[in-house]
Amino acid sequence: MNTDFSSSCPISLTEYPYVLLAHGGGGKLMHQLIEKMFMAALHNPILETRHDSAVIVFAHFTSGERPRLAFTTDSYVVHPLFFPGGNIGTLAINGTVNDLAMSGAQPLYLSAGFILEEGLEMNVLWRIAQAMQQAAKEAGVQIVTGDTKVVDRGKGDGVFINTSGIGIIEHSLSITPQNVRPGDAVLLSGDIGRHGIAIMAAREGLEFETTIESDCAPLVGLVQALITGGVEIHCLRDLTRGGLGSALVEIAEASGRTIEIEEASIPVDEQVRGACEILGFDPLYVANEGRLVTFVAPQDAERALKVMRQHTLGASANIIGEVKSASASPSTALGLVTMKSRIGATRVIDMLSGEQLPRIC
Amino acid sequence: MNTDFSSSCPISLTEYPYVLLAHGGGGKLMHQLIEKMFMAALHNPILETRHDSAVIVFAHFTSGERPRLAFTTDSYVVHPLFFPGGNIGTLAINGTVNDLAMSGAQPLYLSAGFILEEGLEMNVLWRIAQAMQQAAKEAGVQIVTGDTKVVDRGKGDGVFINTSGIGIIEHSLSITPQNVRPGDAVLLSGDIGRHGIAIMAAREGLEFETTIESDCAPLVGLVQALITGGVEIHCLRDLTRGGLGSALVEIAEASGRTIEIEEASIPVDEQVRGACEILGFDPLYVANEGRLVTFVAPQDAERALKVMRQHTLGASANIIGEVKSASASPSTALGLVTMKSRIGATRVIDMLSGEQLPRIC
Repeated sequence: MNTDFSSSCPISLTEYPYVLLAHGGGGKLMHQLIEKMFMAALHNPILETRHDSAVIVFAHFTSGERPRLAFTTDSYVVHPLFFPGGNIGTLAINGTVNDLAMSGAQPLYLSAGFILEEGLEMNVLWRIAQAMQQAAKEAGVQIVTGDTKVVDRGKGDGVFINTSGIGIIEHSLSITPQNVRPGDAVLLSGDIGRHGIAIMAAREGLEFETTIESDCAPLVGLVQALITGGVEIHCLRDLTRGGLGSALVEIAEASGRTIEIEEASIPVDEQVRGACEILGFDPLYVANEGRLVTFVAPQDAERALKVMRQHTLGASANIIGEVKSASASPSTALGLVTMKSRIGATRVIDMLSGEQLPRIC
Repeated sequence: MNTDFSSSCPISLTEYPYVLLAHGGGGKLMHQLIEKMFMAALHNPILETRHDSAVIVFAHFTSGERPRLAFTTDSYVVHPLFFPGGNIGTLAINGTVNDLAMSGAQPLYLSAGFILEEGLEMNVLWRIAQAMQQAAKEAGVQIVTGDTKVVDRGKGDGVFINTSGIGIIEHSLSITPQNVRPGDAVLLSGDIGRHGIAIMAAREGLEFETTIESDCAPLVGLVQALITGGVEIHCLRDLTRGGLGSALVEIAEASGRTIEIEEASIPVDEQVRGACEILGFDPLYVANEGRLVTFVAPQDAERALKVMRQHTLGASANIIGEVKSASASPSTALGLVTMKSRIGATRVIDMLSGEQLPRIC
């Protein structure tokens, strides 16, 4: 354990003397910051599983059932605070609920920590607090503890919210990137990119024929439907910062597998596609707040698709690809994501290197 | 449940159209914000216990022992980031560990959510991350999940950290303000006001004969010593924002009891007293980050004092007062705190009304 405070920073101070916006963007720099700095300083076996949620087994209980809990945290700094389809409050509930759901947990209890900027309109805070309660009710969770801090004007940005969450894991599946296997089907729950584009449009005052609404929603029901349906889920990931592309690259790297996807099977709303073309974004990397990918055993692929399509939030679900290589062991193999384009060409999907859309969550 | 988003804000928008610094100061306005707004919007039985930590009973487990967990959250926005005796990292660990300890829980798992300002020195972040790991090790907890966000320059202040924590409750005591009874002895674990004055001095560049160091420390060992020592603890509270004064008023109000304390029994460092006189602060309201009060059954008072004094963090512990009235039922009685001064006069201790020291945690 590194406790020598004078030890040198593991990130090159020549290259990155200061934190950049891209260090929070979900791409390569954020990955580097987490891996090189936070993992180096804070390492422990649970943190090193790199899940959306930490899975905690309470060994303290010697008799009866041993509780397995999921525990997660997320801070929300979205700008603007209100956008079509949601606001920072709904996002703070759904984002954390979704992180818990990605371990297959039933989310139960949330905390809420507010960092308010002096001068924030009181009524804005009230609208956000009400939206949080409404979203919590819809997701089946309770906000059981909280904290409020106020920073001086110009040292914050209206309101930042941290929500941490606890869920209970009652299934016996092992839902983790390390469990992804050759032959697994890759399923996407719906169209991608709406959240990021909705935020961008609200921020820049862009107008479209019809308003593009964020996909912000709690994914817990969809996941529970898969579990109840007996689907052999190997991995689950919600597609937030960095979008579908970054999520798949992370899973490929963690599993050491090759993931092959088909562009034609990935739904993108026509207006979102148009906005991306104009703004120079690739929808693969645009953030979502109510979409997931799941990797399931091949024999369960069709059934999983059916279960997902029966759920409101999975109505336009698709099988978008397959896990291919088994090659070497996960620890030595290089994970890879390839995509067959609509015109038949195959390209390698890389992790986003710079900052695409800052502060989308 | 109020889900009507158009319902009017429960805080007077004529009186308080905007959030003030004092809404985060630990005094009357923060109390009002929490009670009128957050409790109104987010109400549920666990939140309404108003503990430092939420106590969760996992009814999901039908056989064996039913886990009782403590869950808490705190955001840290202290300015400056480094101060004599600690930094935002040590504060973020100890503050949350202490909130858990105040329910008598053994703190186990923490989350860490960073909100970084673009332009933060990378090396500063590294020093903070290392300090967090060191503090976590000392408090016996692990940081098991995390999150990083970056906001644009001028929209944050270097770094804000949220830590949430989970602890396990293995005793059968009911440690809550509602359990405070007439005759209970009030014990204070040590001198007050050092954290707040250390921050103030660092912020304003004040110099004293010797440097005043923050009392920032994990209180879990002290609490566990009391529990292991078989002391009948009725209530525990760490003395953060609002200091000893506000903590006692909150407990008096929640219990409906009168608390009588003696000024002469409250240790205050001579330099802290001097600084308070110059700056116009009352040490009763200055924040601490390693001090607690506990209310114990009268027959256990002397033993509790002995246990505390044997611990490093309780070496200058004192019995500072007693719970007096039983009067009416807690729901109707008005809680009151009175203090007998050194010259024999008695005054009522009220909750702090304005902002004394902003951003001390």
